[in-house]
Amino acid sequence: MFWDELKYDDKGLVCGVFQDYQTGEVMMISWLNREAVQKTWETKKTHVYRRSRGHIMMKGEVSGNVQIVHEMIADCDRDALVIKVEQVGGAACAHGYRSCFYDRVSGDGSALETQSEPLFDPKKVYGQ
Amino acid sequence: MFWDELKYDDKGLVCGVFQDYQTGEVMMISWLNREAVQKTWETKKTHVYRRSRGHIMMKGEVSGNVQIVHEMIADCDRDALVIKVEQVGGAACAHGYRSCFYDRVSGDGSALETQSEPLFDPKKVYGQ
Repeated sequence: MFWDELKYDDKGLVCGVFQDYQTGEVMMISWLNREAVQKTWETKKTHVYRRSRGHIMMKGEVSGNVQIVHEMIADCDRDALVIKVEQVGGAACAHGYRSCFYDRVSGDGSALETQSEPLFDPKKVYGQ
Repeated sequence: MFWDELKYDDKGLVCGVFQDYQTGEVMMISWLNREAVQKTWETKKTHVYRRSRGHIMMKGEVSGNVQIVHEMIADCDRDALVIKVEQVGGAACAHGYRSCFYDRVSGDGSALETQSEPLFDPKKVYGQ
């Protein structure tokens, strides 16, 4: 299967760029090991390898904001995947934003400025 | 400046996702150290850190296919940037393709299948 053709790094990971399948908005980047790639393909739901926790989790398993996978494309080095997804619940970011990319560089480059509003309250969803 | 707010990994790098500023097509991912981020911002042309060579290079310095930077957005972890670019010359990939992401996973998942045609012949451009 295609996951045998990928080139995993010294930690056994490839980089995943998760993109809205309709608008092209980049929702997040995350890391996948071979098993996460396989699970993502077989279930058609995003699974990622959490480096900080050392295990695979399904995106949205707590919040319900799963991602339905529509397409997967490897790059020329075969160490990265663009994964086109449909974001259930509207928000991909654990901080409540639609996308994890919400801090835009200001016009003069002096700072990062939040450019959107959160869609949910992380405290209510994750209880933190 | 904003590059002081980024979280560089143990190799001093952040991940860059380079995206067509109009269509949202992901052209490539690449790595940037602090100096590459600064040069990219200041010149408004993509500069990346080539891990295999250990130095910074301007994207397109050989082929002429530079990228004009329109916007930069950091993610919530501040260890990744979406960089929206205008691709001069049409092709971002050193193999001649518009995007480095040209190998689509086949419908049955058995293989990666090239889904586009190269726009230039790498041998003629790079002399390899």
